Amino acid sequence: MRKTILLLLACVMAVTANAQQALWGAPSIVSPEVHPDNTVTFRMNAPEATKVQVTGDFLPPQQIDTPYGKFDAPGTADLVKNADGLWEFTTTALSPELYSYTFIVDGQRMPDPSNVFQIRDTASITNVFLVGGDYADYYKINDVPHGTVSKVWYESPTLGMNRRMTVYTPAGYEKSDKRYPVFYLLHGMGGDENAWTELGRASQILDNMIAQGKVEPMIVVMTNGNVAMEAAPGESSLGFKAPTTQLPHTMDGTFEQHFPDVVKYIDSNYRTIADKKHRAIGGLSMGGFHSMHISKQYPDMFDYVGLFSAAILPHDGTTSPVYDDLEGKLAKQFSNPPALYWIAIGDKDFLYEANKDYRKMLDDKGYKYIYRESPDGHIWKNWRIYLTEFLPQLFK
Amino acid sequence: MRKTILLLLACVMAVTANAQQALWGAPSIVSPEVHPDNTVTFRMNAPEATKVQVTGDFLPPQQIDTPYGKFDAPGTADLVKNADGLWEFTTTALSPELYSYTFIVDGQRMPDPSNVFQIRDTASITNVFLVGGDYADYYKINDVPHGTVSKVWYESPTLGMNRRMTVYTPAGYEKSDKRYPVFYLLHGMGGDENAWTELGRASQILDNMIAQGKVEPMIVVMTNGNVAMEAAPGESSLGFKAPTTQLPHTMDGTFEQHFPDVVKYIDSNYRTIADKKHRAIGGLSMGGFHSMHISKQYPDMFDYVGLFSAAILPHDGTTSPVYDDLEGKLAKQFSNPPALYWIAIGDKDFLYEANKDYRKMLDDKGYKYIYRESPDGHIWKNWRIYLTEFLPQLFK
Repeated sequence: MRKTILLLLACVMAVTANAQQALWGAPSIVSPEVHPDNTVTFRMNAPEATKVQVTGDFLPPQQIDTPYGKFDAPGTADLVKNADGLWEFTTTALSPELYSYTFIVDGQRMPDPSNVFQIRDTASITNVFLVGGDYADYYKINDVPHGTVSKVWYESPTLGMNRRMTVYTPAGYEKSDKRYPVFYLLHGMGGDENAWTELGRASQILDNMIAQGKVEPMIVVMTNGNVAMEAAPGESSLGFKAPTTQLPHTMDGTFEQHFPDVVKYIDSNYRTIADKKHRAIGGLSMGGFHSMHISKQYPDMFDYVGLFSAAILPHDGTTSPVYDDLEGKLAKQFSNPPALYWIAIGDKDFLYEANKDYRKMLDDKGYKYIYRESPDGHIWKNWRIYLTEFLPQLFK
Repeated sequence: MRKTILLLLACVMAVTANAQQALWGAPSIVSPEVHPDNTVTFRMNAPEATKVQVTGDFLPPQQIDTPYGKFDAPGTADLVKNADGLWEFTTTALSPELYSYTFIVDGQRMPDPSNVFQIRDTASITNVFLVGGDYADYYKINDVPHGTVSKVWYESPTLGMNRRMTVYTPAGYEKSDKRYPVFYLLHGMGGDENAWTELGRASQILDNMIAQGKVEPMIVVMTNGNVAMEAAPGESSLGFKAPTTQLPHTMDGTFEQHFPDVVKYIDSNYRTIADKKHRAIGGLSMGGFHSMHISKQYPDMFDYVGLFSAAILPHDGTTSPVYDDLEGKLAKQFSNPPALYWIAIGDKDFLYEANKDYRKMLDDKGYKYIYRESPDGHIWKNWRIYLTEFLPQLFK
């Protein structure tokens, strides 16, 4: 009787949720399957399809023309029908990384139906899989003490808004009376307060590197850098409104001006060490731009600054006082220089030249920074790696 | 220059993530579009498809045969190519609800490519949309004070594991010194510690009902009821392992036996009022079964008990001491009866008879409970409604 009801329970759930899938005796498909030699097999059951492809960042890129120049887009590979009637494709051995992909069935993009694990990047949803080893082991959830990841709403008097952020507190935070340093970690254009934990594997990287003693236990605060939004798409009073990169006020000084509200909220509500020596700020792309401007706008606030593929833009065309007198503000910031000013960029990043110009300005003034150049372009692979490299340098 | 770089930034992101979509000048599709009269239009651009359908819980159900009997599965409707070459379907006016759906393109299920909002129920991913009004307004994110939702790892000495749970702390928790009552809210088979916040809209319901003064501010603890798992699929050291309902130890007494570890963790790490009068437990389906057994196993722990479509099973065939002597333990529990023992079920639920038998046993013994019968079956629609009805009765 009990077994029957258990089966019934399982069936009801499966049927109501998923009536179209063959439930009764259908072979379950494993896709993707990461083999011990790091080759990966994709499989799909699509009996009516005439062409099934996979596109993902593990395939050799294809160059595409756009009105703004040539860009590398993820390549594609064809799946082939195997003896069981399943479409299948196996990669060459892949290097360690968190990869993303989707299928294309008769010209129509769709997720891999056998893989429930997906991440959203602005309006694009892709499946993910992980090939472990090397730095990619930091992206795994390992059996180590885990920090708490919270979605927290804070009040911004400057903006007159309640806004959402993600706060990581390290394992042991709840049980101790200790005070902790704080790292403010900012996302790029099109991102939100979920980006660093979902696409950036920030909480896994922190858990693993803290457990290994490579990184100081710290609070990490991941804000939403789009001040036109209260929160990530689907998480605000706008409801299920489609995400977009075309938001107002992303880089007009407003986010930078409100940032002391964030720091004040964190210092008031968490056990922080509330001084410059114990505060870091860093971010990717637009978040690197924000980090650069916030750290020089409030020169007594942050002792560690990380610019990851920073969207360093000339401050023409905007009228915010935040962008006035860059040189004067940098002079003030570097008169009592940060303990670390870290600039990282990929050698194929479209912002490479803009960063080179910025570094030249710092060089000309004699401002000290550490420079890290990596392969590849403006991609999450780099930003995850930069995070694993930046964190061990903080609060030491 | 700045504008160009902003455009470039937007393009790079869009291209690398989504190379196959028409980026340059393609009309953006709105789907689903909820009209002011509560009809809803679905749209899809699938020029190569010969048949496009939508299937979802807002369509009249279709009965399907299974080896375990007949079940209602979501119905389907055909999209029709409109003058612009887009596939389109408009519903009749829908009643307020959080609905879920997917497309079927030439026999292949796939999400709506224009809707990034999805929820996972075990291994099924569906798109969602919300038709507001009535109780469905509680499911919206409104501009009210929001609680904090945290993913917290706790130690279970009983299981020798670290496990993940979701903890809701009400707005104002961080800033006050107040102590709060605690409601333990449990999921069903195939669910996990994310189910009540993702499928159940628990944090929206709590935020809205607390803001309206209908519900006492409380801490809500949503555990993972599958003791074979540390955490939800993709969130544990098993990595990206496909979810399944076929887990060991789901209803063998182990979860119930470990439950005092959860209560102890919460009472040690949160500002709780740590007594029976200020503790509630409730859950859906398997979580209702767990709530029934935990509350009678530890009769001094919970003053409020909610059984939502509870999977009340005869305790034959299992050997756990938790399921021994049900009548004796209920007698003990009801000798100092809970302030509220609330049983709710849908009149089409396959567990209706099992619940009726259980109520008869309570009636025969003279144990007091409140019974709520709703329309429909074993579905999230009911469980969200039950939550909105159970919460206002707690801690009053």
